[in-house]
Amino acid sequence: MEKIANGLYRLTFGEPEELTPVSVLKPEPRFGELNARPDYGIPFPEEEICCRRRAGSFLVEVPLSPEEDLYGLGLMLKSFRQTGRKKLLRANSDPAADTGDSHAPVPFYLSTAGYCILIDTARYVTLSMGNCKIRGSRQDREGFESAGTEYGHWWVKAGSGNLFIDIPAARGVELYVFCGEDMKDALARYNLFSGGGVLPPIWGLGVMYRAYMHGDRERIYTLAKELRKSEMPCDIFGLEPGWQTHFYSCTYQWDEERFPDHQKMLTDLADMGFKVNLWEHAYVNPQSPVFEDLKPYAGDQYVWDGLVPDFATEEAQRIFAAYHAGLVREGISGFKLDECDNSDFTANWGFADFTQFPSGLDGEQMHTLFGALYQKTIIRVFEKENVRTWGEVRNATAFAAPNPYVLYSDLYDHEDFVRGMASASCSGILWTPEVRQAESEEELLVRIAAAVVSPQMVINSYQVKMPPWVQWDTAKNLEGERLPNADELTQKCRSLLNMRMKLIPWLYAAYYTYYEKGIPPIRPLVLDYPDDQTARPVYDEYLLGEGLLAAPVIFGKGDRRRIWLPKGNWYDYDTGFRLEGGQWMERKVRPGDLPLFVREGTLLALAEPEQYIGEHTCFRLHLTAYGAEKCSLTLISDDGVSCCYQKGVRKIQYTADRDGLVEPEADERYCVVDYKRII
Amino acid sequence: MEKIANGLYRLTFGEPEELTPVSVLKPEPRFGELNARPDYGIPFPEEEICCRRRAGSFLVEVPLSPEEDLYGLGLMLKSFRQTGRKKLLRANSDPAADTGDSHAPVPFYLSTAGYCILIDTARYVTLSMGNCKIRGSRQDREGFESAGTEYGHWWVKAGSGNLFIDIPAARGVELYVFCGEDMKDALARYNLFSGGGVLPPIWGLGVMYRAYMHGDRERIYTLAKELRKSEMPCDIFGLEPGWQTHFYSCTYQWDEERFPDHQKMLTDLADMGFKVNLWEHAYVNPQSPVFEDLKPYAGDQYVWDGLVPDFATEEAQRIFAAYHAGLVREGISGFKLDECDNSDFTANWGFADFTQFPSGLDGEQMHTLFGALYQKTIIRVFEKENVRTWGEVRNATAFAAPNPYVLYSDLYDHEDFVRGMASASCSGILWTPEVRQAESEEELLVRIAAAVVSPQMVINSYQVKMPPWVQWDTAKNLEGERLPNADELTQKCRSLLNMRMKLIPWLYAAYYTYYEKGIPPIRPLVLDYPDDQTARPVYDEYLLGEGLLAAPVIFGKGDRRRIWLPKGNWYDYDTGFRLEGGQWMERKVRPGDLPLFVREGTLLALAEPEQYIGEHTCFRLHLTAYGAEKCSLTLISDDGVSCCYQKGVRKIQYTADRDGLVEPEADERYCVVDYKRII
Repeated sequence: MEKIANGLYRLTFGEPEELTPVSVLKPEPRFGELNARPDYGIPFPEEEICCRRRAGSFLVEVPLSPEEDLYGLGLMLKSFRQTGRKKLLRANSDPAADTGDSHAPVPFYLSTAGYCILIDTARYVTLSMGNCKIRGSRQDREGFESAGTEYGHWWVKAGSGNLFIDIPAARGVELYVFCGEDMKDALARYNLFSGGGVLPPIWGLGVMYRAYMHGDRERIYTLAKELRKSEMPCDIFGLEPGWQTHFYSCTYQWDEERFPDHQKMLTDLADMGFKVNLWEHAYVNPQSPVFEDLKPYAGDQYVWDGLVPDFATEEAQRIFAAYHAGLVREGISGFKLDECDNSDFTANWGFADFTQFPSGLDGEQMHTLFGALYQKTIIRVFEKENVRTWGEVRNATAFAAPNPYVLYSDLYDHEDFVRGMASASCSGILWTPEVRQAESEEELLVRIAAAVVSPQMVINSYQVKMPPWVQWDTAKNLEGERLPNADELTQKCRSLLNMRMKLIPWLYAAYYTYYEKGIPPIRPLVLDYPDDQTARPVYDEYLLGEGLLAAPVIFGKGDRRRIWLPKGNWYDYDTGFRLEGGQWMERKVRPGDLPLFVREGTLLALAEPEQYIGEHTCFRLHLTAYGAEKCSLTLISDDGVSCCYQKGVRKIQYTADRDGLVEPEADERYCVVDYKRII
Repeated sequence: MEKIANGLYRLTFGEPEELTPVSVLKPEPRFGELNARPDYGIPFPEEEICCRRRAGSFLVEVPLSPEEDLYGLGLMLKSFRQTGRKKLLRANSDPAADTGDSHAPVPFYLSTAGYCILIDTARYVTLSMGNCKIRGSRQDREGFESAGTEYGHWWVKAGSGNLFIDIPAARGVELYVFCGEDMKDALARYNLFSGGGVLPPIWGLGVMYRAYMHGDRERIYTLAKELRKSEMPCDIFGLEPGWQTHFYSCTYQWDEERFPDHQKMLTDLADMGFKVNLWEHAYVNPQSPVFEDLKPYAGDQYVWDGLVPDFATEEAQRIFAAYHAGLVREGISGFKLDECDNSDFTANWGFADFTQFPSGLDGEQMHTLFGALYQKTIIRVFEKENVRTWGEVRNATAFAAPNPYVLYSDLYDHEDFVRGMASASCSGILWTPEVRQAESEEELLVRIAAAVVSPQMVINSYQVKMPPWVQWDTAKNLEGERLPNADELTQKCRSLLNMRMKLIPWLYAAYYTYYEKGIPPIRPLVLDYPDDQTARPVYDEYLLGEGLLAAPVIFGKGDRRRIWLPKGNWYDYDTGFRLEGGQWMERKVRPGDLPLFVREGTLLALAEPEQYIGEHTCFRLHLTAYGAEKCSLTLISDDGVSCCYQKGVRKIQYTADRDGLVEPEADERYCVVDYKRII
């Protein structure tokens, strides 16, 4: 055991593998910030930790107590609290069950006992999280009965055993144990070890609209104009596969037939305030300009007849990045990195686990690291230009916090989509419950409302020609048939999109805290209330920054919403009513409702909605103090787009006391137009 | 490479593991029958076979041609033709997707090129069945394009590469290659190598009715009497968990409160013609009489606080069998062996892969072998009594053909249930699409009709008090509310159950062929027509024995059924119409319809339906010759219940020529009451 920072320990077992997330992804820990925090020891009996080699794998046992609840493991759409479960962590698209397959599994878990553990492996690790009762173990000796729980007789009781980590192929492993004041502090330390959370470009917090996949230049112009004309906020305009000459596999070359003079189109869109984002994946078609150069730096297997670049080699990164720099110089703000997970559930198109790569990685390890390395490759293009990027990705793993990428999925169950925000947040990753289609007006509104309070708001209309608020029915949309009540529905949706725009200063400050302190900007209740037994399983309520609680409505769950308010006093944002916490409340909800609650003592800032965030946007703020006490708020002011924030930002501090609002010096990014206090 | 029988080769790679299906399950090959068959060489380029060790696993490559189609892998509910797919074979209950998880995965596949391969491993093997295009491979050199198929751009073309077998933990493996005249012959040789197919006790081919799980002795009497009074055929009466004092985990002791004087009940049921079958699983409760004795011969982990017996040790088998011998002597005819797979998809109750067993097996290997060893343990009880048993089981693996067990599942999609018969048949295992519940009269009828042509007909009414034909609605059934049209529905269901009873002599002969020649009794078209490209993917039509084709209707697929008739002439069983094969026919179907077709040249025997098959049942046969040619039929006559058939049976041969039926000598098992010819 080696202490490597305050509260951070590296435990080495056996002979660890050479190629792991730490050695390949090379996180850049913020040791300064880590060591400025108090020191903590490991809060479980170290003498119970043990390990053994077994046929084909390496096993580590970590003590658990029956009181502990466990979270993390990456993006888990079908579960949040992991206590008592078994999970096999494999990168995979479209998992059909809650077995650990995920777009973004992360070999990392956190405990309500105030620690978290990173398992430094790129293998498909299996975790048994307290469901295995071993004969002669502490649990056996103490007479813990494992059979029969509240779920039914076949559900094993959580706490039946310790936690077991089973790592195939390995002969050893290193664990990083992050210990803190509580679970949130431990998680923050992990995020700081990863390099700190991402600060998106400020326009990234606006609305992303992804356009019809079969559209051409004219369709793009029509859509862009319609968005602006209808005053629907949009910052990012996404182009889907069809911008390329070939896309399964990819050439990364503009299709000049569908997009003649694409440079002019990009300039025109920029003039209208749109950032442009391009879809791609990393399987390189033989017709791509980079194919020949990448040949020596690719795996020994094709995907869709395309090369699989070995981004663990500097050469593959350099060649791929150099080409993409050309696209960026043309004005592209970011990329959607598709298909970088794997496909055990859909069509089996991925490279096999036994693929061999020049770096020495095999296919299994590469599947774990591929998304992270792909992101790294693209990020370097933008860093070189001293400009932030922001995009979507379909695979991530450890140390993802600093990456300007949000996860998405082709799955679509709305409860799963909301739950994903909870599990992702506990794993140093970001997730968007994108709005892709709807079978009804109600579904559209409910889904958009939930997206308002997500890390990135995405309207992914790649299947339809017109925006969904003028026609949610896919077939009719493609036929150009507008809803009779298109104007009314557009108005309702505009109101929700505007709510997102109002939240931008607040979210930008929350993201800055993610960057500076490692605390996730949007997080489930348990992180702030780990000892609240009722809050522990709650996966559909979130704290946005400090003091704002969102309880998005889940589609298909009826017109009533039960909401757990943690201890303390809260104010219903819509009505201003004061509510006592520590109890459930039930509220009638209509489609498009977005239940928000403000904690007493919060100074809330909402901006007047913009159509998009430009270089010189000045947010006109409405401030509200909740409760009788003095309260304050810090907003972040910088250029919003360059990497210079890493050298410092202006922190704009507002204070509301009995005498009213104490405003800071004037700042070009913010001005207060309104202040009130609700008691 | 070692030739071990005509057409059978053992290929050894690296250093194979010690504990494998061959070494642990010890199949008893029928070498006499195997060597009586013609010799064949391996029909693919042997020089392309290669292997390598890689981190944590062992990889074998077997050549594939793009023309080959592949089948097998065990019970696969969501796929039949495996060409181009990747499958990770893991024993698991309730798999949610088509990834290789299955109640009964079998490391075995067969090819339309006329061979099959058994991979002798108890590991969770991954097969890539022609979906991996390797750079520089034959497929690459020959310019095979892997991208884009009829399914969509992300579907990789089958034939993109060779077949890869990836075996975790292993440093070597043995493959058994069975070569034959065609795929069916190769499969038959595998079944003969396994010991030949099972011949069930003749009553096993009748109807199994599983009774209400919360029922007591009175409920059982009521049900038994109702079945007989309403003349619903039933041979086997199944008792669910509640017969025991404790069942999660199991004590295997009668609950004398619910079943006072159970011995009298068993005798009474036997007098009414019922065989009794008991539910159990193998996790041994501390209160079980065998718990203490089994302690030294169990894994190091509990399941539901129960021991996991190591049935790979003689001692565990002996202790468990000795106890069960007592139950058998009380009159029990067989057992339903539940929960012997694993639970990655449901509640995570199974023992972990890292469990250690006294025999040296680890949890992973044990999960592969557990069902087979459990069956073996129970079979020895009955063999000792020289009596056949017949039951259900939830896990199986290689060499299952001789075992008197049929697989079942808690899943329920009807298309999957029908498809399961196809994949199981190609893997040396049996599967029942049991009828468990229905949301409508239509669903009940459709499901019962499909069960008529399955390896075992099961009405699993464990959730309801009364038979489903008097009330299919579960809630109303529990309240004792009979359908207004209960008599009419009972009549329709009786007609289907009677159809099953009519088929018994025919099925018994088909099962005897399974025993004698290894040919599955109920099998998909491709086995008999491997070169018929249209027949290759068909998973919902079956040959029953020789010359009878069943095309069960699938629930929820509308009122029309498309049926592929292979080349040759066929007769519609219902109408007697002659149909030309080699084409699709479409037929309107009503609930309860069971489309059957008889191949020209077949002499079909159907019996008058019995209520149950007793020791001295004599089947009254109706024979029909189809077509103008001379045709013949062999039925099997023996005591139907003992193991003496292994020393020979009476083969009763019927021949129909221009002059009419040539009857054999009188036999106590069969008499002909009717003969006709349809031209």
